[in-house]
This record gives sequence, C-alpha cells and structure tokens, in this order.
Amino acid sequence: MRCLSGIQPTGRPHWGNYFGAIRQYIDLQDDNEGFYFIADLHALTTVRQADALRENTINAALDLLALGLDPKKATLFVQSQVPEVSELCWILMTGTPMGLLERCHAYKDKKAKGLAADAGLFNYPVLMAADILAYDSQLVPVGQDQIQHIEVTRDLAQAFNHHFGETFVIPKAQTLVHGAKVPGTDGEKMSKSYDNTLPLFGEVKRIRKQIMRITTDSRPMEDAKEPEGDHLFQLFQLFAEQEQIDEMAAMYRRGGFGYGEVKKAVAEASEAYFADARQRRAELESNLDYVHEVLRDGARRAREAAALVLSRAKKNCGLQESV
Amino acid sequence: MRCLSGIQPTGRPHWGNYFGAIRQYIDLQDDNEGFYFIADLHALTTVRQADALRENTINAALDLLALGLDPKKATLFVQSQVPEVSELCWILMTGTPMGLLERCHAYKDKKAKGLAADAGLFNYPVLMAADILAYDSQLVPVGQDQIQHIEVTRDLAQAFNHHFGETFVIPKAQTLVHGAKVPGTDGEKMSKSYDNTLPLFGEVKRIRKQIMRITTDSRPMEDAKEPEGDHLFQLFQLFAEQEQIDEMAAMYRRGGFGYGEVKKAVAEASEAYFADARQRRAELESNLDYVHEVLRDGARRAREAAALVLSRAKKNCGLQESV
Repeated sequence: MRCLSGIQPTGRPHWGNYFGAIRQYIDLQDDNEGFYFIADLHALTTVRQADALRENTINAALDLLALGLDPKKATLFVQSQVPEVSELCWILMTGTPMGLLERCHAYKDKKAKGLAADAGLFNYPVLMAADILAYDSQLVPVGQDQIQHIEVTRDLAQAFNHHFGETFVIPKAQTLVHGAKVPGTDGEKMSKSYDNTLPLFGEVKRIRKQIMRITTDSRPMEDAKEPEGDHLFQLFQLFAEQEQIDEMAAMYRRGGFGYGEVKKAVAEASEAYFADARQRRAELESNLDYVHEVLRDGARRAREAAALVLSRAKKNCGLQESV
Repeated sequence: MRCLSGIQPTGRPHWGNYFGAIRQYIDLQDDNEGFYFIADLHALTTVRQADALRENTINAALDLLALGLDPKKATLFVQSQVPEVSELCWILMTGTPMGLLERCHAYKDKKAKGLAADAGLFNYPVLMAADILAYDSQLVPVGQDQIQHIEVTRDLAQAFNHHFGETFVIPKAQTLVHGAKVPGTDGEKMSKSYDNTLPLFGEVKRIRKQIMRITTDSRPMEDAKEPEGDHLFQLFQLFAEQEQIDEMAAMYRRGGFGYGEVKKAVAEASEAYFADARQRRAELESNLDYVHEVLRDGARRAREAAALVLSRAKKNCGLQESV
C-alpha cells in the first residue's frame, strides 16, 4: 500500500512522539511504499522565524533517519520542495465549502478560546488533503485528533471525483495504536502543551537530570508498591527487556527501594535504547551533504508522483498544464 | 513600471468590459512592462465545467490578442501555468488574519445574502495578492470594486516584509477612469448581472438584432430631444468620430427621426469600430498553434519573474528551494 506520514518541524521530538507516532510511522516502511514528508508549509503557520524553521526542518530529517527511516525503502522529503502540493491545494480550495472548514476542531477550538486565528490554520485541512491526495496515498496513519482531517480529505476527493470524473485515490485513515502509555515528568500524559516532556535526543547529562526530577509520591521507601499504573514503572517498561521489567515489578511489590533507583534505571535503559540512534544521528550531523542529498532525491521522487496526480486533476477540471 | 492585469475567463466580454477595463489595460502596454494573465485558477471557483473553462481560457487569449495586446510588448499567460503563484499563495496564507478576509466584500456580500460560500471565494484575495506580488508588480489597474483587494495585497506584503525582511515590492492600485458610460440594452449600466450586455465578438447579425431591441422611450418621432443622457446616444459616442457625433446630436435636437435610425447607426459604427479586431480574431482562431505558443512563451517569462520572487520569499521565511 502507498502510505503517507507527515511530521511538523515545530520542535524537538520527545518520548511521547516516538512511542505514540514516529516509531509506528517508521515501522510501516517495511511492508508499504512509504512517503514521509517534513511539513514545513504547515509549520510556517506557527514557526515565524526563518532560522528556526530551517533548523527544525533539517533536525526532523536527522531524527527520522537516525531512528531508522531508510531512504532505500521509503521516500523522505520536505513539503515545500514539492510545488505540486500548493497547486493542488488551491484547486481543492475552490470546491471546499466554508462550513466544512469552520467545523474543523483546530480552528474551532482556537476561535472558541477567543484567540485570533489566521487563514493558515483555517485552511490547514485543505493543504493536508493536497498532501495526501498528491501521492495517491492509500493509507494515512494518524492519531485520533487527525481523523477529522482525513474525513475532510475523503470528502473533498470524493466530491472532486464525482463532479469532474475519477481523479483522486480515496485514502483511508489508520488510527495509531496507543499501546504504550508515555507519562511525562509530572506523571500526566507526556505532551508539549503540559511542558513535561523528555527529549529523544540532546545532551545525555541534561536528560538524566530531567529524569531524576520526575515527580514521585512520598510513600515510605519500605512500603510495598503496585507497579501497574506507576508512571516511573511505565517509563521503564518502554525501554527494558521483559526480564528486567519482571525484576523491577518484583522490587516494587517487595518494597524497600527508593524512587531514585528506579529513575536511574529508567535513565540507563532509555540511554541504551536510543544509543544506536544517537550514534547514527551524530554521524549524520557530521555528514549533512548526505542528508541534503537524501532530501533532494526524495523530493524528486515525490514530485514525479505528484506531477501525475496534478496533471490528472488539472486536465479534469479544465486548467492548463505548466510549461 | 511593471504593471499587472488579470482577466477572469468566466464568459464572453461585452462592450462594458471593453471600454471600462480591457481597452485601458491594453493601452498600458505601450509605456509599461505589462504582465497580462488569464485567471483560470480564480475562475475555477465559479466555472465548474472543464470544457467551458478551457474554452473560456483560450477565448480570453483570442480576445486580448485580437483587441491589440501585443506579445512583443507585453507578457500574456495563463495563471495555472505558473505554479509559483500557488506556492506563494500558501506562504501568504499563513500570515493572513481571518478578520482581513472576513471583511472582504465579495465574501461578505455572499454571506449577507445567506448564500453558501466556498473557500475559493473566501481565500480569493490571498491568491490575488500572490498574483500581484509574484511579478514584483508596481502598478495594478483595477475597477473601484477591486481597490479593497489591492489594500489586502499591500497589507500582506508589508506585514511579510516587516516580519521576514524586504521581500515584496509594494504595489499601487491605479483606478480605472470611468470616462465613457456604457449603458446596456435596457438603458442601465451594462453588466452581466443585469443580463443587458452586448458582446464584443460573435455573429454580427445576432448582435445587430440585440441592438435593434434596445429599450427606448415612446416620445413622438417629431419631438426634439436632448442627446446628453440618452443611452442610444451614449452608445453611439463610444464608436463614432467627433463629426458624426455632432451630426447625431444635431439630429436629436432637431427632432423628426426614429430611434431605429439611431440603432442602425450604433450597429454600423460598432461593427466598423471592431472590424479590425474581428478580422484579427478570425485569423488567430484559424491559427491556434500560434496562440498556444504565445501563451507558452508568456508563461515561461512569467515563471522566470515569479521564480525570483518566490525564491526570495522562501529563503526569507525559512522554507526550502524546490528541486
């Protein structure tokens, strides 16, 4: 299946991003024809500093490649290097009822809070539809919060096909499995909006300090404790082997241990878990020419695919081919 | 000065379009670097039949060339052949406050009438801003109803320049002179929305019939009449030489003539006035390869100019160059 995933280059990825989405995206490269794009045109709505956007964009590429995205298996590219997507965005715009966009939650939520929105946020679902339809994507793995936007994409594609004749492949959403719980440093769900995240990459010492400061309860050390539902234990589970997890659970149930020990175990297990990726990332960082070549090659392949779809769309609605 | 005009290929041009806008646009080619585009991406919002859009687009090119637009002096092209404009449209979108678009009258009027608008109409001013800014246009000749959209363009360009550094040339509107009054077949202002138009081109016999059916008053033939303010006289003035106009005015003041005579004079004068253009149009129509070559060449020149601006904009806001 042709499968599309986008990553917004709005900041550094954290453990929640990795286990909740990125890992699952990357896994799809094995049995699918994967298109992975860094959504800088979307990010431009919120990242309004050129240097930050450029840095975030290359960092997103480094992250994905370090975490195992394989440019021999999948196509990795930057959204703004594929003009066909912007062209398709306008074409779809002309057939998008205002009501459809007014009901989309990202805009609706912002408006409900009395905040000033701009047209980038409002029209976001149309650009997302163009992103998806441009590559004849069949499968789009998304979090629960993006299901509505895939519905918009399907609506727009179906309406276009119905009116102008078969043009777009109708994509399906694949909801990401939220198997692993990823609590943040305060025990709540890890999320940038709660300011409780632990980064995938960065200075090991600093991350370790952040781990050592994770909130814990004040029960006496000697008490036996139930591991299930404990956020430190949940974090440890993400990284450890089953045997280590069983040992840790037994320690919890015995009591007579300090949370500091668990934190140290989380730090060590996470460092070991990401060691290879960290190593690869450092190598890539010192070989940025290679990374840019991967992105250029990806953009070329993406444009080839998108040009076919755009040409079909233009022809079917009566626009002219580019020269 | 670099000067930009767009024509929407939404139907056949009428006398009102010609004297109110097209003639003034074309005149600008002599003392300016003129960019003229056929706005098929805009038209797509209302023309939802592929064949009609294609036909209207090529007809608009034939009309402009027949009426004197000279591809040696000016650049004539079709909007959808310049992808850079769609790219710029999204970039500008991310900095467009919703309020700015909500206040634009085309959308506001439609909403006030309780009609369902689509995002193409709502976002129209952003695409128009991209059209203008893409070519570093300095001067944009427009009718009174488009002044607001030029203001939006200036706002968006200034905001971008202020935030990201000098990128866009700030364009100026040049309000078209409404010197000549062009009444329609019912005596009201000639306009497609009043269904009272007389076409520039088309079957001469049919146009003559339409002219002969122009509404007149029922004063007796023998009465002397004041020519000023009379709609048949106004139409005659558009096409006749000063000497003929003076004669016609004298006839009105003498009285003792039928409106049929005036109508015939209008028909003859208009046929003579458009005879060369009609002839050129027929020649172009039998040489469509040439017309397509003019459009392709125009699009190539337009893309060259737009690529410079897009590249500046992308660089300044942190997006990547296309590959």
